[in-house]
Amino acid sequence: MPDKRLSPSDAMFLYAESREQMMHVAGLLEFTPAPDTKPDHLRRLMDEIRAGGSPAASPWNTRLRTPDLLWNPLQAWVEEPDVDLEYHVRRSALPSPGDERELGILVSRLHGVAVDFHRPPWEAHLIEGLEDNRFAFYVKVHHSLVDGFSAMRMLINALSKDAEDRDRPLFFAIPPPARPPREPAEPGGDGGIHFPELLAAVRAQYGALMNVVKSEDHALVSPRQAPKCVLNARISRSRRFATMKLPTARLRAIAKAANGTLNDAILALSASCLRRYLVEQNALPAEPLIAMLPVAIRAKDDLGGGNAVGAILASLATDLADPVARLHAIVESTANAKQQLQGMSKAAILQYSALLTAPSMLQMIPMTAGHVRPTFNVVISNVPGPEEPLYFRGARLDASYPMSIPVHGQAVNITCNSYAGNVCFGFTGCRDTVPHLQRLAVYCGEALGELEAAL
Amino acid sequence: MPDKRLSPSDAMFLYAESREQMMHVAGLLEFTPAPDTKPDHLRRLMDEIRAGGSPAASPWNTRLRTPDLLWNPLQAWVEEPDVDLEYHVRRSALPSPGDERELGILVSRLHGVAVDFHRPPWEAHLIEGLEDNRFAFYVKVHHSLVDGFSAMRMLINALSKDAEDRDRPLFFAIPPPARPPREPAEPGGDGGIHFPELLAAVRAQYGALMNVVKSEDHALVSPRQAPKCVLNARISRSRRFATMKLPTARLRAIAKAANGTLNDAILALSASCLRRYLVEQNALPAEPLIAMLPVAIRAKDDLGGGNAVGAILASLATDLADPVARLHAIVESTANAKQQLQGMSKAAILQYSALLTAPSMLQMIPMTAGHVRPTFNVVISNVPGPEEPLYFRGARLDASYPMSIPVHGQAVNITCNSYAGNVCFGFTGCRDTVPHLQRLAVYCGEALGELEAAL
Repeated sequence: MPDKRLSPSDAMFLYAESREQMMHVAGLLEFTPAPDTKPDHLRRLMDEIRAGGSPAASPWNTRLRTPDLLWNPLQAWVEEPDVDLEYHVRRSALPSPGDERELGILVSRLHGVAVDFHRPPWEAHLIEGLEDNRFAFYVKVHHSLVDGFSAMRMLINALSKDAEDRDRPLFFAIPPPARPPREPAEPGGDGGIHFPELLAAVRAQYGALMNVVKSEDHALVSPRQAPKCVLNARISRSRRFATMKLPTARLRAIAKAANGTLNDAILALSASCLRRYLVEQNALPAEPLIAMLPVAIRAKDDLGGGNAVGAILASLATDLADPVARLHAIVESTANAKQQLQGMSKAAILQYSALLTAPSMLQMIPMTAGHVRPTFNVVISNVPGPEEPLYFRGARLDASYPMSIPVHGQAVNITCNSYAGNVCFGFTGCRDTVPHLQRLAVYCGEALGELEAAL
Repeated sequence: MPDKRLSPSDAMFLYAESREQMMHVAGLLEFTPAPDTKPDHLRRLMDEIRAGGSPAASPWNTRLRTPDLLWNPLQAWVEEPDVDLEYHVRRSALPSPGDERELGILVSRLHGVAVDFHRPPWEAHLIEGLEDNRFAFYVKVHHSLVDGFSAMRMLINALSKDAEDRDRPLFFAIPPPARPPREPAEPGGDGGIHFPELLAAVRAQYGALMNVVKSEDHALVSPRQAPKCVLNARISRSRRFATMKLPTARLRAIAKAANGTLNDAILALSASCLRRYLVEQNALPAEPLIAMLPVAIRAKDDLGGGNAVGAILASLATDLADPVARLHAIVESTANAKQQLQGMSKAAILQYSALLTAPSMLQMIPMTAGHVRPTFNVVISNVPGPEEPLYFRGARLDASYPMSIPVHGQAVNITCNSYAGNVCFGFTGCRDTVPHLQRLAVYCGEALGELEAAL
């Protein structure tokens, strides 16, 4: 494999990496084994890996060329000929009673440890000891190697729709799909990343944004509307993670009642749990919280039916105590934002989205971290997955929870995977800035019943 | 508690700290529970800690004043009023079959993660899932807070000689003994540590040493006798740990046959396993390996019967293939070194020991790491413990294994605890520089039988 330069957006995740701000994402996959599964199946799987039958395929066999100099302008991915799979694939077990709480504690700890850039930056943990013989995989990958969407696609590719398929290797041994998982480095120039230029570009974008919002249509949420909030603090190096699985049909029913989308229902539940959590801490801002969310939009100039991925800012209407009024306000806010994007060309969508998110990119840069006022309070995203059930060697995938990246200024992140009839919420936060984070997950579940009753 | 400046030797462990060179020590304590112990006793213990009945006592409630600036000349220990015990005390479980190998894998991983200096720099892991309902504690503490000897003493103090004592809190909640666990910062000066001065002092000592050995009696092992060896390489950030428990009586019998001490027997077994390991790698130096070992010596001028702790260099005689000849050569080498120390005053012992170990201190400093030729190949030390059995709430302590610090240039460390009729060997190494480290432990055990047969 030839060495591969990093694209500017991938390099960004190396610039931002620090002991507090670890730029890896992860997936927590929970499985119910087939009835005929041997009790020590994960031990056998590990023995199989040790025996060397499943060498790591691209990109899982690549590491940084200069791991001790992350900011090297000539940084690149190089092939690691001798991947130490016993390092990358690890067995763990839950202490009793092996419930969701213990699983949350374990993966919170695993998520709080940085990857080793002297090796391919990923780890897979095979976790046994869940109740009812269930097991889980925690798979961590640095965002500079694979983004969350691609990682999810690769994981899904690594599972089977066939419960009788019992020989499938683990994801890292499966050769990449025909289309490369990463875009190549941007054409033009030497392909190298120069930090001062990057910083200057982000700063310039931010300045432009400020001018734009001064003169623009105010139907849109502007970056200066986000209130100050305890969620927008500097973070420590420890993590907490909590999960909630809710039936997609119930979320769609709520959305339909307000003429909204599944994403609107996800936002409404997120808004409810954030509001209740902040009220309890006596820390609810008077102004509504602002969420940033990536959306897929059909661009005005795209005749081929393709989509552009943009970012919009939406009000979470947390100033409204009534959950139904809040849901309607959210639907209105996202509709306005998406309508604005729909009038744009693909290029404009990308540029506009970059402008909206520029301040958050600035925050990720260590020297500016925590000194830039947030333009939004929380990132909420939904990564759609397959609707049919998936299997690993006969074990049914019960849930797929995404674990994302808290950064300085964004201490909690809400990411969802929809899969096989459920929306799986993952709440990833800083342990110290967001105490009792598991309450967000509990309140999210309770908010669904509350909204259903009120509608 | 007033803020407490760090002594120069404690500060040294902060200067040396890096992602690869983590200056924490640990103990692995294995227990057999009393027959009437409830299966979920560790869960109850954790609930008890969560309930807040056992607040952390000194020094477990102290953290660095400026954790983001380790080298601060005004660095000090300050009291942390709000110790997050759920962070410091953690439950873990072994995957099946819960054997010594899985325990070794787990603690190797735990030992490869740095402490968080924003908190008191220690962690205690309660590990369940060992075979036969046994359990273990892995306790990690940064060497700048507590040295290995003191940590062992504090842990022993935290256990009971009485199997019926069922209410004892964990070690961190036990107030310090009357004598403070750490020596105060050295008198004179401002108590602050200035890195350039420290470096200059170490360099000066090293130069002085080189002149001394040119003109000195060559009956002693001099720092320039140590051969180049694969064990004296730069290290990565990952660790491996292996253990071996051997009956003290058998080691003493071997020592007696050669007119040596228990420490000589420990050196002989270490020499045998290192030799066999290096032969297998086709990497045995022609010249004998040199070990550095701390020893307690009654000084010439100490009429009060007190001891001075010095360091000596001893040949491991790995050039000799015959184990008995090797044992005799080791006994002769340590006897010569100790005889030399016995003729010295206490001050001279300390100065001489500092001279011997100065190059290794130099290696620990990041900017010189790996560029100084080793004056010894491996550190081997024995921390004597109690001979009577100890208990934690009725559970018998079966073994106490010390986990030490590999540094650049010293990729493996052998430390022993003697306890209740056994010598517990702990082999701590760099995962990448010392592959198959567990073989050292296996070969160490086999070397005992080999020596017994040959004698």
